[in-house]
Amino acid sequence: TEMKLPGQEESDISSASENVPTGELDSGPGSGLSPDGPLDTDSRELEVPKDPPLFIQLNELLGWPHAPEWKETGRWVLFEEKLEVGAGRWSTPHVPTMALPSLQKLRSLLAKGLVLLDCPALSLQELTEQVTRVESLSPELRGKLKALLLQRPQHLIQTPCTSPCWGSAHPREASQEEEAPLKEQHQNPLRQKFAAGAEAGAVLAGQLGFLEQPLGVFVRLRDPVVLGPLIEVPLPSRFFCLLLGPPTLGRGYHEMGRAVAILLSDLQFQWRVRRASSLHDLLAALDAFLEEVTVLPPGRWDPTARIPPPKCLPSEHKRLPSQLRVAKGPSVRRRTPAEDRHGRRQHAANPELRRTGRLFGGLVQDVRRKASWYPSDFLDALHPQCFSAVLYIYLATITNAITFGGLLGEATDGAQGVLESFLGTAVTGAAFCLIAGQPLTILSSTGPVLVFERLLFSFSRDHSLDYLPFRLWVGIWVAIFCLVLVATEASVLVRYFTRFTEEGFCALISLIFIYDAVGKMLTLTHAYPIQRPGSPTYGCLCQYPDPGGNESQWTSTNPKDRDDILSMVRKMLGDFSSVLAILLGCGLDAFLGLATPKLMVPREFKPTLPGRGWLVSPFGANPWWLSVAAALPALLLSILIFMDQQITGVILNRAEYRLRKGAGFHLDLFCVAVLMPFTSALGLPWYVSATVISLAHMDSLRRESRACAPGEAPSFLGIREQRLTGLAVFILTGISIFLAPILKFIPMPLLYGIFLYMGVTAISSIQFTKRVQLLLIPAKHQPDLLFLRHVPLSRVHLFTAIQLACLGLLWIIKSTPAAIIFPIMLLGLVGVRKALEWVFSPQELLWLDELMPEKERSIPEKGVEPEYSFSGSDSEDSELMYQPKAPEINISVN
Amino acid sequence: TEMKLPGQEESDISSASENVPTGELDSGPGSGLSPDGPLDTDSRELEVPKDPPLFIQLNELLGWPHAPEWKETGRWVLFEEKLEVGAGRWSTPHVPTMALPSLQKLRSLLAKGLVLLDCPALSLQELTEQVTRVESLSPELRGKLKALLLQRPQHLIQTPCTSPCWGSAHPREASQEEEAPLKEQHQNPLRQKFAAGAEAGAVLAGQLGFLEQPLGVFVRLRDPVVLGPLIEVPLPSRFFCLLLGPPTLGRGYHEMGRAVAILLSDLQFQWRVRRASSLHDLLAALDAFLEEVTVLPPGRWDPTARIPPPKCLPSEHKRLPSQLRVAKGPSVRRRTPAEDRHGRRQHAANPELRRTGRLFGGLVQDVRRKASWYPSDFLDALHPQCFSAVLYIYLATITNAITFGGLLGEATDGAQGVLESFLGTAVTGAAFCLIAGQPLTILSSTGPVLVFERLLFSFSRDHSLDYLPFRLWVGIWVAIFCLVLVATEASVLVRYFTRFTEEGFCALISLIFIYDAVGKMLTLTHAYPIQRPGSPTYGCLCQYPDPGGNESQWTSTNPKDRDDILSMVRKMLGDFSSVLAILLGCGLDAFLGLATPKLMVPREFKPTLPGRGWLVSPFGANPWWLSVAAALPALLLSILIFMDQQITGVILNRAEYRLRKGAGFHLDLFCVAVLMPFTSALGLPWYVSATVISLAHMDSLRRESRACAPGEAPSFLGIREQRLTGLAVFILTGISIFLAPILKFIPMPLLYGIFLYMGVTAISSIQFTKRVQLLLIPAKHQPDLLFLRHVPLSRVHLFTAIQLACLGLLWIIKSTPAAIIFPIMLLGLVGVRKALEWVFSPQELLWLDELMPEKERSIPEKGVEPEYSFSGSDSEDSELMYQPKAPEINISVN
Repeated sequence: TEMKLPGQEESDISSASENVPTGELDSGPGSGLSPDGPLDTDSRELEVPKDPPLFIQLNELLGWPHAPEWKETGRWVLFEEKLEVGAGRWSTPHVPTMALPSLQKLRSLLAKGLVLLDCPALSLQELTEQVTRVESLSPELRGKLKALLLQRPQHLIQTPCTSPCWGSAHPREASQEEEAPLKEQHQNPLRQKFAAGAEAGAVLAGQLGFLEQPLGVFVRLRDPVVLGPLIEVPLPSRFFCLLLGPPTLGRGYHEMGRAVAILLSDLQFQWRVRRASSLHDLLAALDAFLEEVTVLPPGRWDPTARIPPPKCLPSEHKRLPSQLRVAKGPSVRRRTPAEDRHGRRQHAANPELRRTGRLFGGLVQDVRRKASWYPSDFLDALHPQCFSAVLYIYLATITNAITFGGLLGEATDGAQGVLESFLGTAVTGAAFCLIAGQPLTILSSTGPVLVFERLLFSFSRDHSLDYLPFRLWVGIWVAIFCLVLVATEASVLVRYFTRFTEEGFCALISLIFIYDAVGKMLTLTHAYPIQRPGSPTYGCLCQYPDPGGNESQWTSTNPKDRDDILSMVRKMLGDFSSVLAILLGCGLDAFLGLATPKLMVPREFKPTLPGRGWLVSPFGANPWWLSVAAALPALLLSILIFMDQQITGVILNRAEYRLRKGAGFHLDLFCVAVLMPFTSALGLPWYVSATVISLAHMDSLRRESRACAPGEAPSFLGIREQRLTGLAVFILTGISIFLAPILKFIPMPLLYGIFLYMGVTAISSIQFTKRVQLLLIPAKHQPDLLFLRHVPLSRVHLFTAIQLACLGLLWIIKSTPAAIIFPIMLLGLVGVRKALEWVFSPQELLWLDELMPEKERSIPEKGVEPEYSFSGSDSEDSELMYQPKAPEINISVN
Repeated sequence: TEMKLPGQEESDISSASENVPTGELDSGPGSGLSPDGPLDTDSRELEVPKDPPLFIQLNELLGWPHAPEWKETGRWVLFEEKLEVGAGRWSTPHVPTMALPSLQKLRSLLAKGLVLLDCPALSLQELTEQVTRVESLSPELRGKLKALLLQRPQHLIQTPCTSPCWGSAHPREASQEEEAPLKEQHQNPLRQKFAAGAEAGAVLAGQLGFLEQPLGVFVRLRDPVVLGPLIEVPLPSRFFCLLLGPPTLGRGYHEMGRAVAILLSDLQFQWRVRRASSLHDLLAALDAFLEEVTVLPPGRWDPTARIPPPKCLPSEHKRLPSQLRVAKGPSVRRRTPAEDRHGRRQHAANPELRRTGRLFGGLVQDVRRKASWYPSDFLDALHPQCFSAVLYIYLATITNAITFGGLLGEATDGAQGVLESFLGTAVTGAAFCLIAGQPLTILSSTGPVLVFERLLFSFSRDHSLDYLPFRLWVGIWVAIFCLVLVATEASVLVRYFTRFTEEGFCALISLIFIYDAVGKMLTLTHAYPIQRPGSPTYGCLCQYPDPGGNESQWTSTNPKDRDDILSMVRKMLGDFSSVLAILLGCGLDAFLGLATPKLMVPREFKPTLPGRGWLVSPFGANPWWLSVAAALPALLLSILIFMDQQITGVILNRAEYRLRKGAGFHLDLFCVAVLMPFTSALGLPWYVSATVISLAHMDSLRRESRACAPGEAPSFLGIREQRLTGLAVFILTGISIFLAPILKFIPMPLLYGIFLYMGVTAISSIQFTKRVQLLLIPAKHQPDLLFLRHVPLSRVHLFTAIQLACLGLLWIIKSTPAAIIFPIMLLGLVGVRKALEWVFSPQELLWLDELMPEKERSIPEKGVEPEYSFSGSDSEDSELMYQPKAPEINISVN
C-alpha cells in the first residue's frame, strides 16, 4: 500500500529538513522569510494581516470511470463547510478535523511531486499546460488529463432568497473562450463576504483510473489569476493544488485534498508558503504546522463528530513555535493570566482617575479632554446604525419612564406621576447628553433612589410635612454635597469599587425589585375590595408579561442575523417585544374587562398633584428650619447617588468596551448634581445613570467587522461614541408626553410584572448568584467554572457566605426604622472588601473578585506569578477568559 | 534542542518499522498478536473486554532542586482528570488532548530507552532496582535516583462527604517496611469504581537536574503488583513508566508523561502492549495509535480548551486500521447507515409480527412465548430498584387517575367521576399486569378515548338516551370487534405504523389537550358567575402548576446522581414534584380562600351518579334496538382503541429498549378487549395503554452498568421486565380509593394546568414540531440536524406541509358534526403515508420517517447504497445517530 507511518518519510526529504533546525529555517538564506518576522510577536501580528484573505475550494473528481465530473465538495475560509450531497446544501461551518495519516501521505506525495512556486501562468489554459508537464505521463495521458482539468466543475451556489441552484448543472467541456467567469459566479452572495484583494486557492483531488501512480502538483502563481469557472466566486487564484491517482487509495485523495485545504486556511502556513522559495520551504511549513496540531485520541473522540466554531480562536501571537519561545526566553514571554486580567481593569491605572490635588482639578481635566472630542461627538453619529439605535433606546426609555413613573406615583401617593416622569426624563436626559462626560449614559429615576424617595415620603407624611418643598431642600443640599465631592475629586475612589461591591449592590437592588413586585401583587390579590369603579362582582386577574417577549428584549441586543433577508422583520419584533408585551397585557386586560388598578395619568399637561403649579414653593407649609434639617437626608441621598452613579460609570467605562474618548466620572457627577435642584424645583423625579439601558444603548452602537468568514463571529471594533442618539431619544420622549392620555390604559399589575422580571433577570446574571448556587451543588456536579479551577471550594464558599451576610445585614437595615442610614452601610461594602484582604490571598481575590489599586501594583512580581509557574496554569487555561467580554447587559437593573 | 520533527526519527528505529508494513506487523512472527485478533471484528469485540480495566496515574516530580517531591497531577480511566493545584480539587473529566510533538518526543525517548516486558519485580523496591540499571547512570546517581523513586508521593484524595485531603501531606522518605498501602488509599472512594481485577499503570515524569540526558523506562510487570503508596488506589500495577531528564525540555516531561498515560488509556494500544514482546512491538502499537488520531488545526482550535466527554464514544469495532479494511474488502465491511437504521425497527422483521394464518394464531403464539417467562416475571422483581419504581409510578398513576377522573366527570356531567377512575385504574391495571403480553404497560383512560366518550355523551344527551346502558352495549360490541381483530391477527399491521403515523397521532392528541385546557380556563375566566358557594365578591384566580416542578417530573427519570450522598433527597423531591405541584396549588387555593370549581368526589364509596348501583342495567330507558345500533359507534371506538393501544405498543417495544421477553401485541389487545365489557358493565372508564407513564415505568426499571469511569455515562443494559411492580402500583391505587374524600380540595383549574403542561411537553418533543419550526428558520440559522444533511430542504418542507395538512383535516373533522368518523380518518394516516412513497424517494423517507415493511426488504441492495457510497456519508456521519437512543419519554401524552 501507499500507507506511510510517521517516521517513514522519504530519506532525501526528511534528511533535508533534518539538517536544518526549524529555528534557523526561518532565517535561512533561501527561505525568503524576514529574519525578525516570526521572532518578534508584535511585528508578526502586524505583518500577518497584510496578506490577503484566502478562500479555499476543494473540487473533487467524482463518477470515474463512467461520467467523470468535478464537483465542489468543500470550502474553507476560517472553518470548513462540507457539501451535503443528498440535501443539496452547505453544512454549517465547523472546525476542520483530519486523520494524521492524510497529512503524512500528503507530505510524501508533495515531496515526490511537482512544486511550482511563482508560476507565471495567466489563465487556466496556461496553468493546465504547466501542471501536466510531468515526466511520468505519456503525451496521450497528458492530453486526457488536460481535457479533464478544463472541464467545468459543478458548484452549489446558495442564494438566500431562492432555493440553491447548481452552477453549471450540465457540465460541458469548456472551450478556451469560456474562461471568463460565469454569471452565477458573479451573482454568488458569498462574494460580498470578501474584502477587495481576497485571493483563492483551488484544490483538485480524486481518483483517476488511467494514472498509474499518484500525481501531486502544488502551484503558487506569481500573479493571482481568475481561473475561469474553477472557483465558485470569481476571485483570482493564488494557489492551485492537484492530487490525483489510481483508485487504490480510495477516499485517500479526498482526504489529502482536505488536508491541503486545511493547511492553506491556516494563517501561519499561508504566511510561510507565500514566502517559500523551494520544495524544502513548503515541507518545512507543513512540518511547522504539524508541530502545533492538537491531537485527540481515537477511542475517546468520534472523528466524524463536527465541532462547532469555538467562541474564541487562539490569537496568532500565541502560536509562536515553542522552541523559539524557549530560545528567546523572557523577551517573547507570554502575558500571564494575572497580567491579562489586569487588562480588564485598566481604568484603575487610568490617568483619568489620578488625583490632581487641585480643587475641581478632575472636573477641569474631564472638560478639557471632552471638549476636544466635542465636534466629533456629532459627526460620528452620521451612520445609519444610529437610527435603529435611537428607535430601540426610545422604546426602552419610554418603558422605563412609564414603569418608574407609575411606581413613583404609587410611592408618593400621587405627588408625582407618569407625566412628571416623562417630562423629567426628556429634559434631564437631553441636558445630560449635551454636556456629560459619558454621553452614552441614559438617565433614569432608578430603583434605589425610588426606595429612598418612598422613605422620605412616608417620613414627611408621618410628620405632616409638606412633601414637595421639603424635597426641594433635599435636592438643593444633594447638589451642594455632590459639588463638594466633585471639587475634592472624590470620584477617584471608584477604583475601590470591585466586583464585590458592584455585585453586592446589584443583588440588593434586584432583591428589592423582586420583593416589591411580589409583595404588591399579593396585596392586590388580597385586597380585592380596593378595585376601582368597575362592577362589584368583577375580580382581578394578574397578567404577567409574556416572559418570552421580555427576554428577547434583553437578549436580542446583539443581533447576529443583520445580513439576513428576514432579519429586519425579526429585529423589529425583537425591538418591539417590550412594547408588544405591554400592549398584549393591556389588550387582554381591556378584552376581559378587568377592573384592575390602572396607571393614574392626568388628562391635561399639568402636574399630577391637583392644585400645584409647576414650580414648587421653597417653604410651603413647612417651618423654615426644615430647609436646614433637610441636609441630613440629603447627605445620605448624596452617598446613594454617588454610589449609584459611579458604579454605573465603572461598568460603562470598562476596558472591554474599548471606548476611545475616555470616561468623565467628575463631569458626570457634576451634571447629576446640577440637575438635582432643577428637578426638585419642578417636582420631577431625581435622575442618575441607569446601567441596563445605558449598556443597551452602547450595545446598539457596536462597531463590528463586516466581512467575516462563515462560522466566524464578527469581531468587536468599538462603540460609536457620540451625543446625537441620546439627544434624539430624549426629544422623542418629550414629544411622547402628549401620548400620556393613552397611558392610562396600562394596568398596574403589568408594571409589577415587568419589575419582577427585571429583578429576576438581573439577579440571575451575576457571578454572586452562581456562587450561591454552588453552595447547593455537590462538588461532582459543579460546572467547570474558571475560578473553581484555582480557588479551593471551601474558600469560594467562605467568600460567598461573607457576601451573603453583608446582603442580609443590608436587608435588615433596610427593613427597620434605621433604613435611613442604609446608604452609609452601602458604602461599608467597600470597607468589608478591603478587610477581606486579611482573610483571602491576593490570588484568591484575583479569581473571585479583582484587586484593589494598591495591591494591584505590588502583586504581579511576587504574589501571583509563583502560583502560576508552579501549576503551569499559564499554558493550560482556556483562551476564553482573556478575550474581551461581550457587554454584560444584565449586571444591574436600574 | 531535543525537539524532533516528524520524519526526524532515529534511523535505526524508523527503519526497523519501515521495513515491516503495518498490515503484516500484526501477524508478524515476534509480535505475539494472534493473527485473527485484529482482523475479525466480532472476535475483537469479544476479546477486548477480557483485559482488565486500567487506572493510569501521572506522578510528577515538582520542586526540583529545592524540595523535590512527587505529586499526582493527572489520572485517566476513560477521560482525563487534571489536578487543579490552586483549587485543590480534581477537574471535571474531559477528553484528553495533546500536542503531536509530545508523542513524537516520547517515541524517540522510548526507542532509546529501557523497555522491560514481563519484568518479574514483586515490589516497588525490586522494581526500583530494575529500572535504575541504566548504563548511562553512575552508581552514585543510581542511588540518588532510587531514593527519589521510593519517596512517597502526594495524592489528593477527594471524599464525597468531607473536604478533600492530601494523602501524605508531609512527604517522608519511605522505608522498605512502608510499602504496604496506606489507610487513605484504602479509604479512597475511587476504589469502588473499579471491578475486581482492575489494574493500574504508574507514570512518573519530571525534570531532574542531576541527569545529563533524558531517561525513559517502560516496564510491563509479569504479575501486577501493589507498588506501595505509588498509586492513590491500592490497585496492583501492571505498567510503570519513568520519564526524567535535565531541565532543558521544561514541561516536556510532563507532556510526555501525559502522552504515555493517554496511550495506556486507549483500549487498542493497551491490547497491543499487553501482548508486545519487544520494543519493536511497543513502537508499532504507538504508530498504530498515531494512525488513528484526529488532528485539530492550530489556528482553529485553542489547544487548552477542555472538551467535555462526548455523549457517545466510537465503538471499538469501527476502529480497525484502514489498510486492513481496504485489504479485506467486503468481508469486514462496516454496516451502512441504512442497515444501522434498520436495526431500530427490528420489530418489522420480528417473528412475533409474522402472520401465522391460523385463527387466533398470533394470540396462541404470544401466550406460549409469554408463559415460558411467567415464573421469571416474578423472580426478576426481587431487586431494590423495583421499590423505588413502585413509589414513582404510583404517584404518576394517581395523578393520572385524578386528572382523567376529574375530566371524565366534566365530560359526562357527573355520570362518572374520580371514584370510578380510581376503581377502574386499580382493577383493570392489576388484571392487565397479571395476564398481558407487555406487563410493563400501565393502563389509563386516555385522551382520545375521552374525546370519544364526550362525543358519545353529548349524542346520548341530545337524543335523550340513557347513557350508561347505551355505553354498556358500545363496550360489548368493542370487545367483540377487538376479538375479531385478535382472531384475524390484525396486529401484524403495526408494521405499517411509522414515525409519520406515531407523530401525527401524538401531535393531534397534544393539540386537543392544549385546546381543551386553554378553552376551559378561558371559560372559567369569563364565567365568573358559575363560581361555587363562596361569597359573591370573591373572584377566581387561576393557579398554574409550577412548571419547574412538573418539568422535573419528566426529566428526572434518568437520574445520574444515584451514588451521590444528597441524591436520595434530590430524587425524592424529583419524584414527588408532581404531587408537590398539586399540593402547592391546593394549598394556595385554600390559603387565598378562592371559590374555584373543585373536583366533585362522593363522600362515600358509591357511584358518582346519584341513585345508580354499581352494575349498569343492560337496557335502562333505552329501546331494545339501541343495543344493536351501538355497534356503529363501537366500530369507530374499536379502531380508535386499536390505534391507541398498538401505537403505544410499537413505541414501548422499540428495539432500543432491548426487551428480552418480547412483545405481545395480540395478547395485549385481547386483554384490552376482555376488560371493555367489564368496565362498561360497572360504569367505569375505558382503558388502553398510556405511553408516557408506561415509558416512565420502563425507565425507572433500567438496568445500567455500575462501575463506570469518571465522565463515562453508565451504559444501558436492559429493562427489569417483570409483572410485580405494576401489580403493586395498582394495589396501592386501589387502597387510595379511601383517600377520595381528600381529593375534593383539588381545584379544577389545577388539573387544566397539568393538562396544558402535558400537551405542550408532548408536542414539543416530537420531530414533527422541529420540522414545523424549520419552516420559519432561515437556512443559515437552522440547527445541524442529521436529516437536513441528507434531504433537500424543499423536500423536508414538503413532507412537513403534508403532515400539517393531514393534521388540519383531522382537526376540522373533529370539530364538525362528522367528528364521529374521526377514528377512520386516523387510520387514513397510514394510507397517506403509503401514498407518500410515490412522492418521496426511499432515501428521503428513510431520513424523515422509516421504511414500510415491503420497501424495507427491497431497498438495501439497490435503493439506498448508491447515494451513500457516492457521497461517502458512510464514513462521515456522526456515531451519535446509531447509538441506542435514550427512551423518549415525551413522544405521546395519554
